[in-house]
Amino acid sequence: MTRPFPDRLAEAIRTKQSACLVGLDPHLASIPAEYAAVHDPAATRAERARAMGDFLVDVIQVTAHRAPAVKPQSAFFEALGADGVAQWERVVAAARDAGLLVIGDVKRGDIGTTAAAYSEAFLTGGPGTDPRTLCDAVTLNPYLGTDSLQPFLAACRERGAGVYVLVRTSNASSKELQAEGAPTLAERVADLVERWGAPLVGECGLSAVGAVVGATHPTELARFRARLPRTPFLIPGYGAQGGSAADVAPAFEGGRAGAALVNSSRGLLFAYKDRPGMAWRDATRAALEEMALALGHAASGTGR
Amino acid sequence: MTRPFPDRLAEAIRTKQSACLVGLDPHLASIPAEYAAVHDPAATRAERARAMGDFLVDVIQVTAHRAPAVKPQSAFFEALGADGVAQWERVVAAARDAGLLVIGDVKRGDIGTTAAAYSEAFLTGGPGTDPRTLCDAVTLNPYLGTDSLQPFLAACRERGAGVYVLVRTSNASSKELQAEGAPTLAERVADLVERWGAPLVGECGLSAVGAVVGATHPTELARFRARLPRTPFLIPGYGAQGGSAADVAPAFEGGRAGAALVNSSRGLLFAYKDRPGMAWRDATRAALEEMALALGHAASGTGR
Repeated sequence: MTRPFPDRLAEAIRTKQSACLVGLDPHLASIPAEYAAVHDPAATRAERARAMGDFLVDVIQVTAHRAPAVKPQSAFFEALGADGVAQWERVVAAARDAGLLVIGDVKRGDIGTTAAAYSEAFLTGGPGTDPRTLCDAVTLNPYLGTDSLQPFLAACRERGAGVYVLVRTSNASSKELQAEGAPTLAERVADLVERWGAPLVGECGLSAVGAVVGATHPTELARFRARLPRTPFLIPGYGAQGGSAADVAPAFEGGRAGAALVNSSRGLLFAYKDRPGMAWRDATRAALEEMALALGHAASGTGR
Repeated sequence: MTRPFPDRLAEAIRTKQSACLVGLDPHLASIPAEYAAVHDPAATRAERARAMGDFLVDVIQVTAHRAPAVKPQSAFFEALGADGVAQWERVVAAARDAGLLVIGDVKRGDIGTTAAAYSEAFLTGGPGTDPRTLCDAVTLNPYLGTDSLQPFLAACRERGAGVYVLVRTSNASSKELQAEGAPTLAERVADLVERWGAPLVGECGLSAVGAVVGATHPTELARFRARLPRTPFLIPGYGAQGGSAADVAPAFEGGRAGAALVNSSRGLLFAYKDRPGMAWRDATRAALEEMALALGHAASGTGR
C-alpha cells in the first residue's frame, strides 16, 4: 500500500523547499530549435512526438532538483495521436524515475464504468500497464457529480492516489457558470470536494481530494482557502496568465506543506524566450529558482 | 469545405431510417470469447488492444447498414495506453470507411491553447494526422465556459464538424450540480448551447452545437426540447440504463431528422448476453433492428 498522496506531496515540498509545479504543456512551436524534428515539416508524426518527448525528458532533468511535481497536459500529447500517447507514457515514467510526483492534467469526468476505465488509464492501470507510466494524481471535472468520482476516490483510498477537482478555473469565461448562483457553482463544488475528501485525510492533515482554484481570482482564493482548510490546492494562472506570488499567497494560509502547488508552464518551459541570449536550460533553471523564491516569500508572509 | 455536420447527420438518419447511435464502449470482460487475446492473461497489451479493435471493426460491419453513426468511448481505449489509442485511430477510420458518422465520446473541456490541442486531436488534426482518424463530432464538458468551446466552434464553422455539449447526463448523481439553482445549471448550459449554436445552423434547420440530455430524465427532456428547438440531442441512458423509446419520444418533437440520436452501448454490442444461443453478430443485428423500429414508432408518435 502506497502512502497517502497528501503525505507524499507534503514530503516532496519540504524536500525541494518549493511549491512549484512544472506544467508540461509542450506547445510544439515554442520548443527550442535543437529538437529539430519538432519543427521539420518532413518529419513523421512519430519522429515529431519523439523529439517532443526528448525535450520534456530534458525539462524533467533540469527541474527535478527544485520541483516537487510535474503536471503533463494530456491534450498536447493527444494531438499527436497514439505516437503522442506513447510519449506521455515515456515522460510520466521519466518524471517518476527522477523522483517527481506526477499530476496528470486530464480533466476527465464521466460516469460509472467509463470513469472506472479512466481511473485505470491514469491511476491504477489496465491489463498490461507498466506501473511506471501511471500518475500519482489527476485533475478531474466535477460536472457529472459523485458517481463520476467514485473509481478515483477508490484509487485514493486503496492506492494512495490523489485527485484535483476543478472548482474555479483561471480562464476569463470560467465565470459564466462557475461564478453563477447563490451559492455559486464553484462553492457547491467546493462543498462536494470537502465531502469527498473527508475520509481521505493523511497524517499531514491534508486530504487526497484537492481543488483547482485559479491564481487569477485572488479574493476568491482566500475565501476557498477558508472554506476548505484541509484541501490541497492546485493553482493555475501564475506568471504567463497574470497571477503573481502575492495573488497566490492566501492559498498557503495555515502554513501546511502541500496546502498549495502553483503551476507554471510557459514561464518555465519557454523561459528562454524572455531571456535573450540565454540557453534554454539555464533560462528554465533560473525561472524555476525565481519562482520558488517568490512562492517561498509569499508562503511565509514576507512577500505580501 | 465539408458540409455542415447537422446536414450530414440529417442525411445519414434519413438514409438509414434510424436514429440509433451505436456506442462503442468495449468493456473487455464482455467481448465475445472468439476475440481470444482480450481474455488471455498471457497476451501483451498490444495484442489485447488489437483484439478489442478487431471486435469493434466487426461491430461496425454488422451495424453500418442500419446505424447513421457510432460513438466510440475514449476511456476504454485510453485504459490500454498508446496501444489502445492506436486502435481508436483504426476504429474511427473503419467507421468512416463504412460510411458512418463518428461522434468521439471524449467529454473534454479545457482552456485556450489546450482546448485548441484537443480540437486538433479529435476534429482538425495535428501535424502528421491521417484525416481518416478524425471524428465528425465530439462530446464536450461545458464547465470552463465559452473559451473552452472556441476552437471547437471554429472547427464547426470551418470544417463542418459538430459538438455535443453535456447538459443533463444520465447518471444518478448528475442532479447534484446539474439540477441545482434557479435557473438550474443544466438550463444555464442549455442557454449557452443555444447561443454557441445560433451562428451554426445548417440547411436542415439544426445547429452544429448539440446537447447531451439523458433518457433517464424524460420530463426534463421535453422541457429542453422546447427550450432548444434547433439543437441536435444526443441521448444516453437508453436500454441498459433504463430509458425506453417512450422516454426519448419528446426529443423527436418537431419531426426534423437529426433532432435526436439515441445511444445504446451494452444493449447492442453485448446483445448476445440477453439472447442465449444466438451468435453475437445475429444478436447485435437483431437488437439494432428492434431499437430502430422502437425509435421510429416513438418519433412518429405511434409508440407513445
